[in-house]
Amino acid sequence: MLNDVQAYIDSNEAVFIEDLKTILKFPSVSADSKFKQDLLNCADWLKKHFEDIGLTAEIIPTAGHPIVYAEWLGAPGAPTVLVYGHYDVQPPDPLNLWTTPAFEPTIRDGKIYARGATDDKGQFLTHVKAVQSWMKVHGKLPVNVKFVIEGEEEVGSNNLDLFLEANKKKVACDVAVISDCPQYGPGLPAITYGLRGMYACEVTIHGPNRDLHSGAYGGSVANPATYLAHMLASLHDKQGKIQVAGFYDGVIPLDDDERTAYAALPFDEKTYLNDIGLKVGFGEPGFTTNERRWARPTIEINGLYSGYIGEGPKTIVPSYAFAKITCRLVPGQTPHEVGRSLETHLRQQCSIAIRMDFKEYHGCEASLVDRHSPYMAAAKKAIKTGFGKEPLLIREGGTIPVVKTLKDMLGVDTLLLGWGLNSDCLHSPNEHFTLADYQRGTKASAALFTELAK
Amino acid sequence: MLNDVQAYIDSNEAVFIEDLKTILKFPSVSADSKFKQDLLNCADWLKKHFEDIGLTAEIIPTAGHPIVYAEWLGAPGAPTVLVYGHYDVQPPDPLNLWTTPAFEPTIRDGKIYARGATDDKGQFLTHVKAVQSWMKVHGKLPVNVKFVIEGEEEVGSNNLDLFLEANKKKVACDVAVISDCPQYGPGLPAITYGLRGMYACEVTIHGPNRDLHSGAYGGSVANPATYLAHMLASLHDKQGKIQVAGFYDGVIPLDDDERTAYAALPFDEKTYLNDIGLKVGFGEPGFTTNERRWARPTIEINGLYSGYIGEGPKTIVPSYAFAKITCRLVPGQTPHEVGRSLETHLRQQCSIAIRMDFKEYHGCEASLVDRHSPYMAAAKKAIKTGFGKEPLLIREGGTIPVVKTLKDMLGVDTLLLGWGLNSDCLHSPNEHFTLADYQRGTKASAALFTELAK
Repeated sequence: MLNDVQAYIDSNEAVFIEDLKTILKFPSVSADSKFKQDLLNCADWLKKHFEDIGLTAEIIPTAGHPIVYAEWLGAPGAPTVLVYGHYDVQPPDPLNLWTTPAFEPTIRDGKIYARGATDDKGQFLTHVKAVQSWMKVHGKLPVNVKFVIEGEEEVGSNNLDLFLEANKKKVACDVAVISDCPQYGPGLPAITYGLRGMYACEVTIHGPNRDLHSGAYGGSVANPATYLAHMLASLHDKQGKIQVAGFYDGVIPLDDDERTAYAALPFDEKTYLNDIGLKVGFGEPGFTTNERRWARPTIEINGLYSGYIGEGPKTIVPSYAFAKITCRLVPGQTPHEVGRSLETHLRQQCSIAIRMDFKEYHGCEASLVDRHSPYMAAAKKAIKTGFGKEPLLIREGGTIPVVKTLKDMLGVDTLLLGWGLNSDCLHSPNEHFTLADYQRGTKASAALFTELAK
Repeated sequence: MLNDVQAYIDSNEAVFIEDLKTILKFPSVSADSKFKQDLLNCADWLKKHFEDIGLTAEIIPTAGHPIVYAEWLGAPGAPTVLVYGHYDVQPPDPLNLWTTPAFEPTIRDGKIYARGATDDKGQFLTHVKAVQSWMKVHGKLPVNVKFVIEGEEEVGSNNLDLFLEANKKKVACDVAVISDCPQYGPGLPAITYGLRGMYACEVTIHGPNRDLHSGAYGGSVANPATYLAHMLASLHDKQGKIQVAGFYDGVIPLDDDERTAYAALPFDEKTYLNDIGLKVGFGEPGFTTNERRWARPTIEINGLYSGYIGEGPKTIVPSYAFAKITCRLVPGQTPHEVGRSLETHLRQQCSIAIRMDFKEYHGCEASLVDRHSPYMAAAKKAIKTGFGKEPLLIREGGTIPVVKTLKDMLGVDTLLLGWGLNSDCLHSPNEHFTLADYQRGTKASAALFTELAK
């Protein structure tokens, strides 16, 4: 049966590209309220499109941009697959750096250029097209499918958890699928089985009640910028190992077979560093670059501010200084525990001569999906079918909170099947998606439904 | 003879206040080119005013705003006194915080409110009024006087050294007088015999060629903000003692009698700290607050920047981080040597995983005037006459580069006779000058001419 579906996908390549162009034309920028109606229009098109291909669909309002929900539940007894995606996109700015306009999808050299091409419209649409192909060819699917396509991923998915919590029965499933991540490299399809979590905070050091003349006062009061430097310097040793008591507690170490597998991955350190303008890597001793970025926790300073940062010198003792800090967490860590360790450590470093404010943002635990589950086996086979190659099994250093939510709330694993590439310029001008990957992803998705039904 | 002059000053109080109002009405803001003509108008008024009171005067153009030069050399054999001052003022912003407009001088509670009232129009004008009084009463002065009133003090005095260098003979003198600093406190006139010097630089740490996604890269590259924190933290120990090799080399220690004198000064640490919103002081162990701010060198971070400093978190490894640093120097240190010590220290702390840029700004050595010279004795007596009180002998932590220039170029000491108060809101809205101090300063200046002639 699958062969007929794959043949349909091949013969409808041009049609599917037209559908992709259509959805890419909506400037569904969630961060900017002036695009509110465009998000509604995009959601509306998507709902109708789901209905056109034979699913029931609805637009579910939230406190922000709506969620599009669609389902086909005509395979009783078969597993139920939940596909998550997002129809909102990053702002297209800076506009002048786009070769062709961000919302006028244009094909060049086998790639489609538009904001949202790879993140995430092009990627989630492969599953829609796979469903469409099954429905057109056979009038049914081998599994039940549900789609949750939200409109707020790029602004923090603030209303997604509320929706899932309130609709647990509706979204109940056996396994989730998300295509919102990259392949390991060009021609190197991958399944991401691990993600890092996140903890974010901001620490502000308050000194004098105003910027002081450094001549009149300098030397007689604690300088908040200097003190912040002391506190931040105490977070790592000079080799990059974290010095915060309790920070590494509970960290689940990498399996030996994972380390062996990562060592065997095609990876050119020099190219990796060269791309980001560096000659020398850096990080926790005893780990490779991929281990460091995928499976080891971090404390990163994301921003620093104090005093005068304009042109030339200014002779002041600044009134305050702050640092924005995020931690990437690995399995075994919780945002709460990491937050307490970090805050305790910083307070211990603080002097009585200054005052410290500690502000906490969101947190999210890491995710680790069982590499040996039948779902994973099905995904491997599906990718082999779609891409003609066995996928690599990798982790990613980033955070996709919904993966953790789906696990905690619905008890299901998520298959992270990336069809994009890190070089697709996501969040940057000239975002694009390789049309061959759009096609291969659609075929892999079609095959996945067969494999999951087994 | 002096008694007649003092009587003249008393009986002309109202006239002298009118003259002060007149000069304060010129919006001679040197930082903003739209006030260029106002500076010229102010210089012009000043030149004419010098001529009106019996001096020869000229306006000397510079690459920037002109210098007003005036002299009366009718006392052959008597010493020559050079008075330095500046007719330019700080910008008056924020305008909405002024109770009455910055350039509409207004008297309230015995104080005159206007930009420039204390810094420096009101203060240098006391010497002009003293000269005027001598000339009116006796048709002559007991000493020769020269005035150098520049128009660029608030923007770095860029053309002053060039003028002095090119006019060494014209400005030759035996002693210089500057009233551009405060009394020790209300009712506590003082002579400032020491000033700190200055060294300014900026250090930038370059990491990746762009801000990186902290999920994809975090942990595998050196974070420039973290590294900058390490480098800055290494400048001081946690007690505030500087750890830069060679930094304290050559520092001339405080005399025992200076430390004794400072300890005897009226000083309430609690009030000092309370005014700036602090409960606890901080600084180099083994020194008091006044010693720390007047006579010990410092390294202050004046500004810090890296990555994202807007609202909320942003998950990046920043591309670069910088710090603005100034050092206050004390006698025995040179900007060049301090700069080399600092740069060498920072480079030693730097990692091969990052790149450091070091940018140097201006520098200036500290000044220390002989407390036991006859000029100092004359100034003490003059202040006793004008203010009815012995002056305190203090240092200031700030930097007045012209003092060092006058010493190096003309070989003369400067008497720093402050008539203002730290609470006069100089550089802030509602700048003011106490009219009684304007009067007392004028009398002290009139007496100084007598004392210097002895």
